[in-house]
Amino acid sequence: MGILIKNGTVVNAHQTLSADVYCDADKITAIGKDLEVPAGTQIIDADGKLVMPGGIDPHTHFELLFMGTVSRDDFFSGTAAGLAGGTTTTIDMCIPDPGQSLLEGVSVWKQRAEKAAADYSFHVAVSSWSTRVSEEMGEVVKTHGIPSFKHFMAYKGAYMVDDEAMLHSFARARELGAIVNVHCENGDAVAYLQADLLRRGVTGPEGHPLSRPIEVEAEATNRVISIAQITKTPLYIVHVSCKEALEAVSRARLSGQKVYAEALGAHLTIDDSVYKSADFDEAAGFVMSPPFRSKGHCQALWNGLQAGHIQVVASDHVTFNKEQKRMGRDNFAAIPNGTGGIEDRMSLVWDGGVRRGLLSPEEFVAVTSANAAKIYNMWPRKGLVAPGADADIVVWDPHASKTISAKTHNHATDFSIFEGRTVTGIPSATVARGRIAYLNGQLRAERGAGRLVKRYAFGVAYAANHA
Amino acid sequence: MGILIKNGTVVNAHQTLSADVYCDADKITAIGKDLEVPAGTQIIDADGKLVMPGGIDPHTHFELLFMGTVSRDDFFSGTAAGLAGGTTTTIDMCIPDPGQSLLEGVSVWKQRAEKAAADYSFHVAVSSWSTRVSEEMGEVVKTHGIPSFKHFMAYKGAYMVDDEAMLHSFARARELGAIVNVHCENGDAVAYLQADLLRRGVTGPEGHPLSRPIEVEAEATNRVISIAQITKTPLYIVHVSCKEALEAVSRARLSGQKVYAEALGAHLTIDDSVYKSADFDEAAGFVMSPPFRSKGHCQALWNGLQAGHIQVVASDHVTFNKEQKRMGRDNFAAIPNGTGGIEDRMSLVWDGGVRRGLLSPEEFVAVTSANAAKIYNMWPRKGLVAPGADADIVVWDPHASKTISAKTHNHATDFSIFEGRTVTGIPSATVARGRIAYLNGQLRAERGAGRLVKRYAFGVAYAANHA
Amino acid sequence: MGILIKNGTVVNAHQTLSADVYCDADKITAIGKDLEVPAGTQIIDADGKLVMPGGIDPHTHFELLFMGTVSRDDFFSGTAAGLAGGTTTTIDMCIPDPGQSLLEGVSVWKQRAEKAAADYSFHVAVSSWSTRVSEEMGEVVKTHGIPSFKHFMAYKGAYMVDDEAMLHSFARARELGAIVNVHCENGDAVAYLQADLLRRGVTGPEGHPLSRPIEVEAEATNRVISIAQITKTPLYIVHVSCKEALEAVSRARLSGQKVYAEALGAHLTIDDSVYKSADFDEAAGFVMSPPFRSKGHCQALWNGLQAGHIQVVASDHVTFNKEQKRMGRDNFAAIPNGTGGIEDRMSLVWDGGVRRGLLSPEEFVAVTSANAAKIYNMWPRKGLVAPGADADIVVWDPHASKTISAKTHNHATDFSIFEGRTVTGIPSATVARGRIAYLNGQLRAERGAGRLVKRYAFGVAYAANHA
Amino acid sequence: MGILIKNGTVVNAHQTLSADVYCDADKITAIGKDLEVPAGTQIIDADGKLVMPGGIDPHTHFELLFMGTVSRDDFFSGTAAGLAGGTTTTIDMCIPDPGQSLLEGVSVWKQRAEKAAADYSFHVAVSSWSTRVSEEMGEVVKTHGIPSFKHFMAYKGAYMVDDEAMLHSFARARELGAIVNVHCENGDAVAYLQADLLRRGVTGPEGHPLSRPIEVEAEATNRVISIAQITKTPLYIVHVSCKEALEAVSRARLSGQKVYAEALGAHLTIDDSVYKSADFDEAAGFVMSPPFRSKGHCQALWNGLQAGHIQVVASDHVTFNKEQKRMGRDNFAAIPNGTGGIEDRMSLVWDGGVRRGLLSPEEFVAVTSANAAKIYNMWPRKGLVAPGADADIVVWDPHASKTISAKTHNHATDFSIFEGRTVTGIPSATVARGRIAYLNGQLRAERGAGRLVKRYAFGVAYAANHA
Repeated sequence: MGILIKNGTVVNAHQTLSADVYCDADKITAIGKDLEVPAGTQIIDADGKLVMPGGIDPHTHFELLFMGTVSRDDFFSGTAAGLAGGTTTTIDMCIPDPGQSLLEGVSVWKQRAEKAAADYSFHVAVSSWSTRVSEEMGEVVKTHGIPSFKHFMAYKGAYMVDDEAMLHSFARARELGAIVNVHCENGDAVAYLQADLLRRGVTGPEGHPLSRPIEVEAEATNRVISIAQITKTPLYIVHVSCKEALEAVSRARLSGQKVYAEALGAHLTIDDSVYKSADFDEAAGFVMSPPFRSKGHCQALWNGLQAGHIQVVASDHVTFNKEQKRMGRDNFAAIPNGTGGIEDRMSLVWDGGVRRGLLSPEEFVAVTSANAAKIYNMWPRKGLVAPGADADIVVWDPHASKTISAKTHNHATDFSIFEGRTVTGIPSATVARGRIAYLNGQLRAERGAGRLVKRYAFGVAYAANHA
Repeated sequence: MGILIKNGTVVNAHQTLSADVYCDADKITAIGKDLEVPAGTQIIDADGKLVMPGGIDPHTHFELLFMGTVSRDDFFSGTAAGLAGGTTTTIDMCIPDPGQSLLEGVSVWKQRAEKAAADYSFHVAVSSWSTRVSEEMGEVVKTHGIPSFKHFMAYKGAYMVDDEAMLHSFARARELGAIVNVHCENGDAVAYLQADLLRRGVTGPEGHPLSRPIEVEAEATNRVISIAQITKTPLYIVHVSCKEALEAVSRARLSGQKVYAEALGAHLTIDDSVYKSADFDEAAGFVMSPPFRSKGHCQALWNGLQAGHIQVVASDHVTFNKEQKRMGRDNFAAIPNGTGGIEDRMSLVWDGGVRRGLLSPEEFVAVTSANAAKIYNMWPRKGLVAPGADADIVVWDPHASKTISAKTHNHATDFSIFEGRTVTGIPSATVARGRIAYLNGQLRAERGAGRLVKRYAFGVAYAANHA
Repeated sequence: MGILIKNGTVVNAHQTLSADVYCDADKITAIGKDLEVPAGTQIIDADGKLVMPGGIDPHTHFELLFMGTVSRDDFFSGTAAGLAGGTTTTIDMCIPDPGQSLLEGVSVWKQRAEKAAADYSFHVAVSSWSTRVSEEMGEVVKTHGIPSFKHFMAYKGAYMVDDEAMLHSFARARELGAIVNVHCENGDAVAYLQADLLRRGVTGPEGHPLSRPIEVEAEATNRVISIAQITKTPLYIVHVSCKEALEAVSRARLSGQKVYAEALGAHLTIDDSVYKSADFDEAAGFVMSPPFRSKGHCQALWNGLQAGHIQVVASDHVTFNKEQKRMGRDNFAAIPNGTGGIEDRMSLVWDGGVRRGLLSPEEFVAVTSANAAKIYNMWPRKGLVAPGADADIVVWDPHASKTISAKTHNHATDFSIFEGRTVTGIPSATVARGRIAYLNGQLRAERGAGRLVKRYAFGVAYAANHA
Repeated sequence: MGILIKNGTVVNAHQTLSADVYCDADKITAIGKDLEVPAGTQIIDADGKLVMPGGIDPHTHFELLFMGTVSRDDFFSGTAAGLAGGTTTTIDMCIPDPGQSLLEGVSVWKQRAEKAAADYSFHVAVSSWSTRVSEEMGEVVKTHGIPSFKHFMAYKGAYMVDDEAMLHSFARARELGAIVNVHCENGDAVAYLQADLLRRGVTGPEGHPLSRPIEVEAEATNRVISIAQITKTPLYIVHVSCKEALEAVSRARLSGQKVYAEALGAHLTIDDSVYKSADFDEAAGFVMSPPFRSKGHCQALWNGLQAGHIQVVASDHVTFNKEQKRMGRDNFAAIPNGTGGIEDRMSLVWDGGVRRGLLSPEEFVAVTSANAAKIYNMWPRKGLVAPGADADIVVWDPHASKTISAKTHNHATDFSIFEGRTVTGIPSATVARGRIAYLNGQLRAERGAGRLVKRYAFGVAYAANHA
């Protein structure tokens, strides 16, 4: 039974036009006016609305064992919340235990992801170097269709990788036509500052941003760009949070280097005043890394999106309940790092970007969906409303509003960092793999409906070199 | 009688796919495999070739009366040469005489353009300010479908416009949803340096670059960006030639300002060593403004294209014969400024950009066609291979080469600034308005086959503000 | 009768040492321990205090006819207020009427300056270009010992000079070994914005900063740097007020260009919130150009001082009473531009710079005195505590405070933009030309005690070229 | 027996004047005209010459055991060559063996330095972190008068220090009022590239610059600046060799950070074409780290000196004979790193800087002597010609020339990287500790005449914070 989305305006990253869209099973099969459709076709009326490719969130952590606890949203609740927010594809960070084989890590993650309500893929984290890692990287790309590898420059004693390992991993990624992505904070500096603050008696959440100042992120960003320049590997910086890190990205791009950057919905809209709350639960709720910055940095990120130096907005979704955050009641460094946002991501960008006149609707599609599809080698199957593409569509109401709240959100956590914020621009329907997964406020997520998306290597990041 | 382009790879700025393309009359009507076509359809076999939107050259001067002489290529020979090089649309600078009404200027240009072999539009130059100019700008946009205005900051005593007039013209353009474009050189400084050089006995072509150093262009670029920032008008900088001007563009873009930039095929590939020739004809042939720069600047322009800070490659085609250039035998300032390049533009970008691994084929389409169509409000009619778009197509052979020479080029001038340069990547066929205008080395341009393309206002440059 | 300053710490820009200082008549004649001095020598006990060169304020406007009124402080009250604040030398802007000969201008200014209580010199403004101006510039430098020329890029219809005139004036200055200084705001843009704001009904003082936004200053700064680069003339930018203008200065300096920059005490310490007052007198009192900026710019200026990209802190002292400011009650553009500050300048720099740990005492001497002496060719006669130098000395109490107020200041105006601000670091004594002009809160300024300081040409700005 | 230097022009960094200079024993005791001097005073006639503070070379390696061999110049031959070139004070890098106590290192170095012909001090290298290191740093500063510590970010497996150790060492230095200096190259990246090049069969000296590209230095420079920002420690970057590293320095300085930079005479004047020689000895002779760069970088360094972002020119003198360099005949990574230059340093700066009009004579004194004295806490005892200062003076002939050659130089090595270069501006006499150590081409260095200069802590780099 197909789906016909009628009377809407189709917005792709490259073009806007008035047309109806027909989905047959899990594919879009026709776009046009007065389409003939079979009897029994489900009709979604998109009059006054925008028909856009379903969102892609290329940075999530579902069911993550981290800092001694497990994050609240798993692949089902997480992808379901995504669907409620218009996101139909996620790429989760598959982080093998230190010493664990990459392939075992992939195997664990595949199992966890079986309950996903929407399509997904993984990035696989490399945190040390060996011949085995090198060989397994090949398997991961070629056998599993996962051509992207994550590296953490922070979290000393856990995921943190050193420069030597990154040099080898990056060089190997280049051989394989894969892209590397990196969490940029100098882990030595964070550890030093944490110890120094604790020694001086700073134990509350206000110590968190002090232990991860801008120079810690800007330094690592600049460093990893140099490393990627040496190995000539396309590089994607996750969650750029500050002006100085963005400037490092811009310098690199202006010298012709292939560097992509991601901002988070949260960093675009929240500033560091949140850490000043005297209420531990309130302040600890915002503990994530990199931390929130002063207001000027939020604006710098919007400008980066406008200028094309930041290509993607993600969520870095990883949720903990208040009780979990309280593990760091006496020591900010023990507060589980992470915040939720997959459901809110697209509305935050529309509200802050399009409604304020900073981004056009086409640019909205680019930064919430199409660019991630291109960079991460799912294009044109994902990120595009066109015949032949997957039937992943969001019908967007640019004028409707909602007020975000833990009382109503679909995240499996007991608070929201966006509590009380009213955003204009929300989905009225989400179609995923040819199923109506969300309609007029009603979530119809189906456990296990999602599939692993096999991604190709040597994609757009390598296109210039392989023309 | 339709045209079927078979077995090729369709390359658009946003996507590449294997498909055949069918053109019915002057429109593309179908894209796909195994298309059914009427008997008598002309077949172009594109096996091993790329099927791309015809090039758009948004910066030409045909039949221009300039510096006391008339440029050699008129709308017929110029657009015909364009077709031979894969370009199917041009936007010519309509420059009314000082004091002449804009509308009279448009009328004169329309008449000259009747002989064009391919589609065209105009930018209309504003060189002074008055109520009449303001009113006529409205007419130009609304009645004539010309939503772009040119301003010259150089050529003192001729086209040069002062800051006050630009402020008013830019503000008016914003009201009208038009884009402004600007030749950035400080005309006062050029005049000062010309006089100073001549006084010191420097009269040969080597004086030309000395009279227009980098700071003259960088200053004007920075200035006009500030003026556009004040009036909040989208701005397009023509022929950025140096790193410092590009840096001004980048700074503006990174602050969220709507600034576009254009490079010329010639500036990308020729450096200032050409002015050192002892042969006047040789050196004078390269006299254009801004002049050629040292090699590092060529590379900076390529990097600007890679980083997306330069969106368009144009030709600024304006040709003079050697005899005309000799008007400045005793005074470099009297050498008619201008060089030819419309026929060579696309091959220069492929050869220097794609073949060298700096740009992907999709990016090639963006900078030679799609971006100009978007910025100048012809999208998606131009710049796109898709059903409904104009039947303007170039079939590109990425492996074939040619050696550029005045003996064989289609420019109406007796020398070429690219003489002897071999470029890889050339058209094997060009289809314009549904006619095969060039095929396998044979030019079939038809006088008068081109039409004025009416362009809309409030296009992509305004999209964010009018979402 | 000589003066002995005992028990103090002598702080010069290059060195600090404990020593007594003896002044004989108008010269410093000895520095050392246990100096033998004649009977009757006046003793100033500087125990716990710093003995520094008297301040040099190279940017004042005394008794200026401007915007239809005459500024309140004349050469007596102005220089007297300077003495109370530790400043012993001023350089006033001599601004001939449009069309008036430069030499006549100098003659008028000399007459006005006869009542000065401390030494002074002039910068002579060039506002148009002619052979006569060129010849008179030679006279001004060679006969009058005034090797610096002022140019206004703002104040259209009054002092504003165009690029052509600046090119000629700068080239002539270079021949003469003079330095040029420039007020950088794009006068066309200011005029456009003023008219636009008034047309839209914005008539109050809040319109003043809106009519002179940052881009207006940054543009002009960048432009004049390019012009000076073309003529190879050393350039001094007066009252840099914003980060973007400072960045233009830094870019130039880093390319080896001879560019100096000046900040004002007021711009370092006051932000643009002052224009929001509903009280016209309050807001209008802060009307000066460039206007005050947001807080981030104040910090950028301090950083510029730390980095050595800004060399001088001046006052741009020009005072009007409230009644005069009311000339612009219905039209912010008619509010006389200018604020007072000569008396407060040094304390503002000590309090905001040295006390906060941004500048060392030696750097304080550099930016308040020695650098101006060097750049403006009075070194080592002024700006240095050393035998042979003029007996211009301030004995500075780094720990004493005062609260600035119109009730107590020595400016001839009925309000202070620093009203109520408490500053730490004030003079306990000022010696000028060998006279104690200020002691322990008591001002002993003498009308007519000041002399015109003849300055040499081809000074430090030319030193590298004439080694 | 004193020395009178007559008829010269005394040039200090802050001032130039015509005066005679009298040295009594090891101090300057008088400056002035017509000085009365004891009978038997040695007279140096400085007519037409400049009398300047003896040079300070704050970066040398004498008698260094490095890469399996011992460098040729020891404290005698090295300091003697310095005297022949006008340099009267050196600061040598004291590098304890890994694991060796800092104090033992100092002890070894003190012993080696006993033969020095001119005054000296040390920087002590910290290459790991422990409580003992922390305690010994205190001893080094307080007991030995050595308030500066060196850190190597390169030379993996040897001196290389990690970020964690630098954080602790820098924080400790700040407590002690010491300055840290750093060799900035990413050692991991160098090791990776060396291995990669060797694996690909690149074994000759041309591999050296390929293994240490610009990004390797720029990255480390940026990183260490961030680390110093975190610990708020004054930082001195040794041998900045490229534009990108300098830009990192400039960014830091413009944000108010206390960062100093050093260029080498060799980097200012030699470009990377030297590595292209087919003659192993020729190319290997230039192997040092960071390597020589393309010409544009040399100019950038000169501009950095002009702009004040580079404060010091040093030599990084460490010499090996051809035979020693041949240790790396089959493996460029085994060529002992280092080049000679202490004798040539000052002439290179005069010739390339002052003679070309880039620097004034005062700036020459600043960058070759006074700035190093200030930054490294020997001011005003060193770096100044003034009564009370040490009798370390160079009498400089700005017009005389010499051609540098291994046949005539005073370095203990069998080749010169400056072979055949003619420089204008050479010493005619050098006075060190009140002895004439060089006169009219004749070197009179005395073994053991030099003394360890005790330096104070909390010097100029801390002055702003301790005002």
